[in-house]
Amino acid sequence: MQETRLSTARIRAARRVIDPVFLDTPLHRCEALEPALGCTVSIKLETANPIRSFKGRGTELVASRLAEQGLRAVVCASAGNLGQALAWSGRGRGLDVAVVASRFATAAKLDRIRALGAKLELVDGDHEMARERAAAIARDDGIRLVEDSLDIETCEGAATIGLELVDTVPSFDTVLIALGGGALATGVGHVMKALAPEVEVICVQPEGAPAMTRSWHGRRVVTTDSTDTIADGVAGRCPIPAVLDDLLVVADDAVLVREASITAGMRMLLDHAGLVVEPSAALGIAALLEDRDRFAGCHVVTVLCGSNVDMGAYHRWVGR
Amino acid sequence: MQETRLSTARIRAARRVIDPVFLDTPLHRCEALEPALGCTVSIKLETANPIRSFKGRGTELVASRLAEQGLRAVVCASAGNLGQALAWSGRGRGLDVAVVASRFATAAKLDRIRALGAKLELVDGDHEMARERAAAIARDDGIRLVEDSLDIETCEGAATIGLELVDTVPSFDTVLIALGGGALATGVGHVMKALAPEVEVICVQPEGAPAMTRSWHGRRVVTTDSTDTIADGVAGRCPIPAVLDDLLVVADDAVLVREASITAGMRMLLDHAGLVVEPSAALGIAALLEDRDRFAGCHVVTVLCGSNVDMGAYHRWVGR
Repeated sequence: MQETRLSTARIRAARRVIDPVFLDTPLHRCEALEPALGCTVSIKLETANPIRSFKGRGTELVASRLAEQGLRAVVCASAGNLGQALAWSGRGRGLDVAVVASRFATAAKLDRIRALGAKLELVDGDHEMARERAAAIARDDGIRLVEDSLDIETCEGAATIGLELVDTVPSFDTVLIALGGGALATGVGHVMKALAPEVEVICVQPEGAPAMTRSWHGRRVVTTDSTDTIADGVAGRCPIPAVLDDLLVVADDAVLVREASITAGMRMLLDHAGLVVEPSAALGIAALLEDRDRFAGCHVVTVLCGSNVDMGAYHRWVGR
Repeated sequence: MQETRLSTARIRAARRVIDPVFLDTPLHRCEALEPALGCTVSIKLETANPIRSFKGRGTELVASRLAEQGLRAVVCASAGNLGQALAWSGRGRGLDVAVVASRFATAAKLDRIRALGAKLELVDGDHEMARERAAAIARDDGIRLVEDSLDIETCEGAATIGLELVDTVPSFDTVLIALGGGALATGVGHVMKALAPEVEVICVQPEGAPAMTRSWHGRRVVTTDSTDTIADGVAGRCPIPAVLDDLLVVADDAVLVREASITAGMRMLLDHAGLVVEPSAALGIAALLEDRDRFAGCHVVTVLCGSNVDMGAYHRWVGR
């Protein structure tokens, strides 16, 4: 395969650094979903850990390297899940963690960031404004900035999911990955192309936040002026060039799905699998719902990447 | 410790027989639950597998031994989870599986038993009548009867959860275990008393199905005429003497909880942990809610043993 910024050896080594509470997550077929989807469906569940998302895999690497270097402080911008994860990983190593988020971010995520002892600053704008503010804090205070998807640790951490997929599932045809900044997609995608190149890697993004998908199809960075989706975890507007370069190597396709499909996917996961997920985690099911013919008879794995939701909004979305 | 019917060596050996999809389940602190409960709470999540309960651990042992012996058919009575598990384990080994259940059993459980290819027979009575009918089928057809909690495989399978608790959690004070027939409680309890005797083993049963708890306190089998609880998975009336004997060795206490506490526990797990569980799986949280003083400042682990619910009933129970 063509080179990416990632190295399979480094990803394997990352497993030794990450707290086991984030590793070897459940992976199993979910037959109750299959009649409605027309294909074999396995789920990789990244919600059953202390921070209810996969992001701890990456922040464990970040925090352990900072601690090794004797550094004491770190800042990141976050839609909420990275912030929780960095707060958790930093707390365990005595780091001062600052998180910048949009004041429109999911309240449950912001509450947990505070509860984990991080300093939370809210900006009166979207996630891109939070990114700018976090960069300014890092510059002004001389502390480490963690940039999701750009910083290689965030991609390597996510990529350990790929190792677990390759090592465990007997055989599958396609992996569906939520696409936001790109850490999850480039991480898992790298491992697939390196170790199981026959598996199709399909990224899924909401129609209301299509920047990275448009960039992938156009083979150059495309930004958007705004986002309009309930899938807060993937609602970026400004793809990072280096991440796009990797995504062009590892992804076989990138598709957009409608909001109604995302909520239908969340509802299916609740009703037939007993799983509460956040909108970003339902993107894979949404893709299956929107193109049954494409996946008919295939064995598809989808990564359920997080479950941090405001429960009031959740109940409105799923209509339960 | 005093002897039970279980052997720690056999429990360790069982891990090599059980499909890994049921093993090494998530175990983590759930800090979002702690402010309301006043203690440190870790959960052992037994719902993230193909049958959404811990019962696969035991049926894997049963089915593999049947297959080794060249036997082709098996029958069990089930409130729904054992039946699903036996259907799953039997299907993978080409066994004919028959399940007898009450026609009042949870519809979602019965649907899944059928979907997994087992023959399902319903009796017009409660779980004890299903047990009698299953025994009659086994006798008449000359096939193996699996009796939950009496058959040692069901206890040894459940006991592998105990090994994972002892091997993983840094230290905890108390484990709260749903008490029904007793396989889970005696299995996990045996491992605790053998390998971590300082951990308090507390069994939890609904006030509406108190037979085993009353038996434990009375040190002799006490039956009841009926049950009245939403916790279908633990609603037995006739404790098995040999299981009670083991429970008397391994349990430090057995407590009863109210239905309102069970639903409150389910609601907390949904709202603060994003977890759908069946009533039996909320018994531990219910016990914490009913006796905050007893557990204040302790580190408590509770086993979330299943998530098979009728979603309509679930939403009524949790009021969401």
